[in-house]
Amino acid sequence: MTDTTTPRVLVLSGEPPAGLAPLAGLAELRTVTEERLAAELPGADALLVWDFSTDALPAVWPRAGGPRWVHTASAGVDRLMFPALVDSDTVVTNARGVFEQPIAEYVAGQVLALAKDFAGTYARQRERVWEHRVTERVAGTRAVVVGGGPIGRATARTLAALGLRVSLVGRTARTDDPEVGRVHAFAELDALLPDADWVVAAAPLTEQTRDMFDARAFALMKRGARFLNVGRGPLVVEEDLLYALRQGRLGGAALDVFREEPLDRDSPLWDAPGLLVSPHMSADTTTWLDDLAEVFVDNFTRWRAGRPLRNVVDKKLGYVPVTPVEGAPR
Amino acid sequence: MTDTTTPRVLVLSGEPPAGLAPLAGLAELRTVTEERLAAELPGADALLVWDFSTDALPAVWPRAGGPRWVHTASAGVDRLMFPALVDSDTVVTNARGVFEQPIAEYVAGQVLALAKDFAGTYARQRERVWEHRVTERVAGTRAVVVGGGPIGRATARTLAALGLRVSLVGRTARTDDPEVGRVHAFAELDALLPDADWVVAAAPLTEQTRDMFDARAFALMKRGARFLNVGRGPLVVEEDLLYALRQGRLGGAALDVFREEPLDRDSPLWDAPGLLVSPHMSADTTTWLDDLAEVFVDNFTRWRAGRPLRNVVDKKLGYVPVTPVEGAPR
Repeated sequence: MTDTTTPRVLVLSGEPPAGLAPLAGLAELRTVTEERLAAELPGADALLVWDFSTDALPAVWPRAGGPRWVHTASAGVDRLMFPALVDSDTVVTNARGVFEQPIAEYVAGQVLALAKDFAGTYARQRERVWEHRVTERVAGTRAVVVGGGPIGRATARTLAALGLRVSLVGRTARTDDPEVGRVHAFAELDALLPDADWVVAAAPLTEQTRDMFDARAFALMKRGARFLNVGRGPLVVEEDLLYALRQGRLGGAALDVFREEPLDRDSPLWDAPGLLVSPHMSADTTTWLDDLAEVFVDNFTRWRAGRPLRNVVDKKLGYVPVTPVEGAPR
Repeated sequence: MTDTTTPRVLVLSGEPPAGLAPLAGLAELRTVTEERLAAELPGADALLVWDFSTDALPAVWPRAGGPRWVHTASAGVDRLMFPALVDSDTVVTNARGVFEQPIAEYVAGQVLALAKDFAGTYARQRERVWEHRVTERVAGTRAVVVGGGPIGRATARTLAALGLRVSLVGRTARTDDPEVGRVHAFAELDALLPDADWVVAAAPLTEQTRDMFDARAFALMKRGARFLNVGRGPLVVEEDLLYALRQGRLGGAALDVFREEPLDRDSPLWDAPGLLVSPHMSADTTTWLDDLAEVFVDNFTRWRAGRPLRNVVDKKLGYVPVTPVEGAPR
């Protein structure tokens, strides 16, 4: 495309977010409702799926002449992987980066909080008790991060930046990963658990990962090791975690996700020894709307300059692969 | 020195720490008391000042034939900078790295804890309250770290590793710092404060830094910015910090050091809004004795292999310069 035209960009749906202001004059932004989508889609150059919970697209996607580029303000793209779009030449991009960095920061923060016993320090502060203790250094300790997707990878990178020795475990083993080098297979987890000071569950919920962290896994872990879950609640057998904490087998834990949310007031997890409970909020930041808009603005700028887009979805795989597809919309 | 001799290493004083076990057979380790120091020093190849609070050395340092290498299990070397040692050919090394990394981790942890409101989350957990909130992302925010020494530098490196944009402020401005690039002078601090989301005091206490953080400095800071002190208590005018927190001018703070320690039970700092109080423990880890021993063992190995030592003190400056002196003991 040339720089002399002003592309028509449909925004589905709601008010165009304030973060799109930099596009004024560069794009013709049109907010469209689900009802008007069928009528507007054929004339659009690009579609920004701002309301990523929409299920309206498959029914109205044109056989020919659809937008050359669809961007979704979400990490998941499952609602866009319908045959007519997958088989088209339309490039799909997502908001990779907006959600995983905050989660990685949350994990790094809770790792440091557990190592430095911040909860114990804050509790003493409330009682006005000055009690010096020695705490732990995290640099040089070993972490196993389970989850080879964007969240696991961002978490692994962030922990490594703090000097931890990190092993990443994913669905597929490989030794030539461009970001993290080696990725271990799920089958290797048992061999990695005994050496880990920190085990972080950051995997999606699949039949392979459900109940992955049970009594057997906790028994393999080093006495005093810590366990964190930022993936999905059902990765963990909560009774088994509770038992491991009460036995002192695990030295602490931090859970941001639970099998049932919100966590019941009567749940024994609230006061399990050494367990930090947070209400499924690790990904959610004050700037998330701006961050989502910024990814689109950046990609729009790339599009207009004819440069490769960020976060191009491999439509056969259904996600943004680690080695990016260097595709740009025609 | 050749590899065929076994050097005599005096350890002053106390039991030789367990972490020196790797030296068995490689060195003749002799623990020496302050009383025996004068008699033993002339025949020693190296001296490990394990009790770094000793003041015994200046009186007994031999005019000639002293140890070729003195290592102190401390960051400060002021007790070793007496003329006879400074003017000698003896190489002095210190424990740089053992204390600053834990402090840097503490700062990173409290920055994340403030950004993610861990204190608020832990308080809700005690009440069994599930209350989702949005919190802050730290990557991309701006930090000013005041203190160009090892602690400030380690802190700056660690925050930068988390994606913060960090400005380091020290006694001497320079643009060619091998580790951090640019270092700003104290005089530039006023210009940096208004843009900072985080201001970290990590400077030593000198006449230049005393009361550096007062009402004037807090008034220059961005509304809602956070302040942390891991340097020395008197860097901060505590009444002014209290006022800035109560006015909501600052969004939070974390203090590990205070003008009077322990902090009095009646101090208004204990429950100042948004203030995290910890009892001067950021540097103190469970492994500090092992870490101190490890630095010596590493340097001993380098010495025997004829490689440059780590942490060589510039005896004219009185500290380990950023660009290391590439000296090895004869």
